Amino acid sequence: MTTEPALEELLAALRCLPGVGTKSARRMALHLLERDRPGARRLSRALAVAADTIGHCSRCRTLTAATICARCADASRDAGVICVVETPGDVLAIEGATDFRGLFHVLLGRLSPLDGIGPAELGLDRLEQRLHDEPVRELILATNASVEGEVTAHYLAEMAARHGVRATRIAQGVPAGGELEYLDAGTLSHALSGRREY
Amino acid sequence: MTTEPALEELLAALRCLPGVGTKSARRMALHLLERDRPGARRLSRALAVAADTIGHCSRCRTLTAATICARCADASRDAGVICVVETPGDVLAIEGATDFRGLFHVLLGRLSPLDGIGPAELGLDRLEQRLHDEPVRELILATNASVEGEVTAHYLAEMAARHGVRATRIAQGVPAGGELEYLDAGTLSHALSGRREY
Ligand SMILES: [Zn+2]
Ligand SMILES: [Zn+2]
Repeated sequence: MTTEPALEELLAALRCLPGVGTKSARRMALHLLERDRPGARRLSRALAVAADTIGHCSRCRTLTAATICARCADASRDAGVICVVETPGDVLAIEGATDFRGLFHVLLGRLSPLDGIGPAELGLDRLEQRLHDEPVRELILATNASVEGEVTAHYLAEMAARHGVRATRIAQGVPAGGELEYLDAGTLSHALSGRREY
Repeated sequence: MTTEPALEELLAALRCLPGVGTKSARRMALHLLERDRPGARRLSRALAVAADTIGHCSRCRTLTAATICARCADASRDAGVICVVETPGDVLAIEGATDFRGLFHVLLGRLSPLDGIGPAELGLDRLEQRLHDEPVRELILATNASVEGEVTAHYLAEMAARHGVRATRIAQGVPAGGELEYLDAGTLSHALSGRREY
């Protein structure tokens, strides 16, 4: 389309980002080149630094540049409650939306027997070790409300029971602002069966 | 929200992109870190190279890493037709959507007297020089269909007339797939007055 290799390569690299197509890539490239070159250099550096330094916490497996992440190292957090999630993004989402002050455990996936992902592939022995070593009272099962997420939660609940640890599951129901009419049957059914006193 | 400076900085830098908010930045960062580190390094390099090398063509002012862009240097293009647009993005859009084989002139803005942007600020003397020096037969006025875009087109049409060059304006009307019911009055009025034999 153009014969400018540097611009062409920038457009192609931007299109690799999730949710970015031809038009957004063009908009982003032109914004950076016409109006925000310091922003382009800043993003370039941030990407290089993150790609080179960020790994997974050796305790909870979330993203961190250190061996142990800042949450795990923070003695003011309640080590008695571990919230188990599928991805580091779930950690950010929960921290951004709630005032949860316990610890996390990131599975980096979910049980999916059909895809050959069993307890070993998910490294669930690490979580079992934590239940053994740490003063855990409650394991919050915050896997997704998908079939695999439910299978994973079920497996984890049995693991918690073996260690005498209470397991809880995040609530399912009508999302904030959700209109009943447009909800799928599973959500509506969960919302009804999980009803509380008003 | 997190206390991981490298991740925090990557999220902040991504949020500077147009159309990217907290959630998209998170999705992009996690995609790159969990599933596509080569993509992160590629984008980092592409941004640095583009920011350092890309400037404006000395003839048509579109983005290029050379003194004269590949379009201006391409002798197979019709130098008798110059399409005047507001931004380099318009050049990419027109090249992507049409088989236009003439040359371009990028204003890098539009006339906007209220904002103090007059002919001098837009560097219109450069375009006038092209009308004088080059074998131009037609000036296609492809500025936006906004008030300033129309003012700019009007000014350019008068400039063309002074040089005995034919000026044409891109058509306004119903966009492809557009439903009359939802169009604004200006568009509908243009579509009706610009009607042709069927
Ligand atoms: Zn950790
Ligand atoms: Zn050029």
